[in-house]
Amino acid sequence: MGQEFLKIMDSEDVKKLLDNIQPKRRVESVSLEDAHMRVLAEDVYANINLPPFDRASMDGYAVKAEDTFGASEDNPVLLELLETIKAGYIPTKKVKKGTCIEVSTGAPIPHGADGIVMIEFTENKEGNIYIYDSAHMGENIAYEGSEIKKGEPLLNEGQFLTPDKIGVLSAIGMRGVKVFAKPKVAIISTGNEIIEHDKELQYGKIFDINSQSLVSAVKSCGCTPITSGIVKDSYKDVLEKISEVLDVDIIITSGGTSAGAGDVLRKVLDDTGDVLVHGIAVKPGKPTIIGMVNDKVIFGLPGYPVAALMVFYVFVAPFLRKMASLEIYSGDNETLRLKLSRRYHSARGRSQYALVKIEDNMAHPILKDSGAITALAEADGYFEVPKNVEIIQEGSEIEVYLLKNLVK
Amino acid sequence: MGQEFLKIMDSEDVKKLLDNIQPKRRVESVSLEDAHMRVLAEDVYANINLPPFDRASMDGYAVKAEDTFGASEDNPVLLELLETIKAGYIPTKKVKKGTCIEVSTGAPIPHGADGIVMIEFTENKEGNIYIYDSAHMGENIAYEGSEIKKGEPLLNEGQFLTPDKIGVLSAIGMRGVKVFAKPKVAIISTGNEIIEHDKELQYGKIFDINSQSLVSAVKSCGCTPITSGIVKDSYKDVLEKISEVLDVDIIITSGGTSAGAGDVLRKVLDDTGDVLVHGIAVKPGKPTIIGMVNDKVIFGLPGYPVAALMVFYVFVAPFLRKMASLEIYSGDNETLRLKLSRRYHSARGRSQYALVKIEDNMAHPILKDSGAITALAEADGYFEVPKNVEIIQEGSEIEVYLLKNLVK
Repeated sequence: MGQEFLKIMDSEDVKKLLDNIQPKRRVESVSLEDAHMRVLAEDVYANINLPPFDRASMDGYAVKAEDTFGASEDNPVLLELLETIKAGYIPTKKVKKGTCIEVSTGAPIPHGADGIVMIEFTENKEGNIYIYDSAHMGENIAYEGSEIKKGEPLLNEGQFLTPDKIGVLSAIGMRGVKVFAKPKVAIISTGNEIIEHDKELQYGKIFDINSQSLVSAVKSCGCTPITSGIVKDSYKDVLEKISEVLDVDIIITSGGTSAGAGDVLRKVLDDTGDVLVHGIAVKPGKPTIIGMVNDKVIFGLPGYPVAALMVFYVFVAPFLRKMASLEIYSGDNETLRLKLSRRYHSARGRSQYALVKIEDNMAHPILKDSGAITALAEADGYFEVPKNVEIIQEGSEIEVYLLKNLVK
Repeated sequence: MGQEFLKIMDSEDVKKLLDNIQPKRRVESVSLEDAHMRVLAEDVYANINLPPFDRASMDGYAVKAEDTFGASEDNPVLLELLETIKAGYIPTKKVKKGTCIEVSTGAPIPHGADGIVMIEFTENKEGNIYIYDSAHMGENIAYEGSEIKKGEPLLNEGQFLTPDKIGVLSAIGMRGVKVFAKPKVAIISTGNEIIEHDKELQYGKIFDINSQSLVSAVKSCGCTPITSGIVKDSYKDVLEKISEVLDVDIIITSGGTSAGAGDVLRKVLDDTGDVLVHGIAVKPGKPTIIGMVNDKVIFGLPGYPVAALMVFYVFVAPFLRKMASLEIYSGDNETLRLKLSRRYHSARGRSQYALVKIEDNMAHPILKDSGAITALAEADGYFEVPKNVEIIQEGSEIEVYLLKNLVK
């Protein structure tokens, strides 16, 4: 009588089960141009000194520091200018007592010089250089290796390639870098009533919602979605489609998980792999299946678009981020404490994910069913009602998970 | 004597100046597959009813509700099963008194039926359907247009296309959508000492850092970087390169802004466009130029990599996000209040952006110069020391801007 869930589990147990699956992580090389926000898959050591030579860190005059001792506004030192060296050029002369070489920021330090007087404290009067301030030994010189020495560790596996990290890789002349590959995720919609967007909408049919919303959700987790089309709710079609996409890292289907839909996914998994979870004590999202085929994890999400996305956010997204090595940045668990604007009735015996809109610093429950994708589009976040709680009173403080933290 | 900045401005005045420039925003069409996190450039109205027909929202039996009144566990009602309709199929029969049609979630409601009894409250004994619970009128039916009516507003220009919003567009069968085009940003490195990564590092030369770190930074702002190579610090080369890339929306150069580098960018802008800013009273970043050529904004960043990125984060990024219509999500201004681990000396007469590492809930200043890209790679954030403050005492509370909020 009615739907049978073979392995119904509490949400916390499902999370633990997924935490214990260690997905295989692939590594690939990308150019720095394509490395933005990828996750480093190798430790990087300096292969050169930085700076690679002694260089001027200011515009000014390279001098023998001792020549300038005692120089001041009232008592300038006069030096002979030997040449002018811009960044990128090589000095041809040596600084000797009583002489100087003009250098730009970034220019190599001429032999014999051991300090730079900033141009602000000098004056060039027809080739005679007046020095109005003393330079100490090493002043305004960035010595070879002073920022980083060849062989020193620079970046670590697991770090995010933000602009500064990519700058570090550029500084040592790296052209490409090893990063964790983006897991490939096949997305399959199942349902006899589901049609593609280039078809005409006939009576009894609806446009496929989940393929595109899941494409976006999968991208949010640093994975590459592979849109794999729509299949009918038949054992043969679902089996064929799953066999077709087994070269990906993870498979996500939606629909076809309830008794009414023939529960075809469960049967296919029973025959070809393992069913790990069949039914989760949550609302929305009860008819969720999690299984394995050929070491690939397969998530069978409910067909209802809100249920599909909520199950995605709560259970699938953390798993995908783990696979993409993105946990460090996820921020999924940041919540906002807000007061509930009205009494809320929750499902009996199941954890409920209740959508809310935030207005006037209050959380307003959105009372639409999980078939209504517009409910999620209106929502700012959700709160979780534990399975043993049925009523939350108006004005209670709740922890709201923000949807904007779930999508990047 | 020394560097001359023609139009040196305080940081707040530069921000105001940039706020007042209204960049032109281009619009383009993208497929839903490519719409992830793009910004909607049109208001979207429903072109169909949702659901598009009366449909079952549960698996069960479509009945005349009045047939079931009074039904209970102890007192079931017996109904004749006419047919079974799965989602995607069309009923061929009409429900009359004493009969029912089995329907799956999503199936069209058969004529004559006005309620669905969930399958959990029924039993099928050899084709005879026992109903153990009463259905009220409309129970478990999602009526045509009950979620959204044709013509109603769905989404607004300026909204982010998160998975749920893309789900809404899918629900009404949209294949493509108008979004604000990603601004194209040319990135030019200038400097005689700068070489590309495929060149051998010769004495006096350094690898180009800023091109790739700015590519990443520009992507963080929802813009498309166009790597435009390295030019020498010569008037002719800079002029030619800028003329070459004028089909982009914004130009960013780095290097070539100081007196020692010949200040070529300022001269080029003086002759071909306008210099709006020449010098900002900040550290690092003083030798920054902002100008316009042919209605295109051009940012001339300092050559030092840390200075280039800090000026980018503080001044350029908000402008790019405005151009990309991404202000709503920027979060640039979220700060963390932390205690400073040691006394900090700041630049006289300039606002200072001081990098810090966060450890043990304290902000530890990073004391490297702005030539050291590794300083930024080690940093978690920065705090701003106002220009009239020279010393911040150990233990003072400071507001730390987090670098991870600046890159997405």
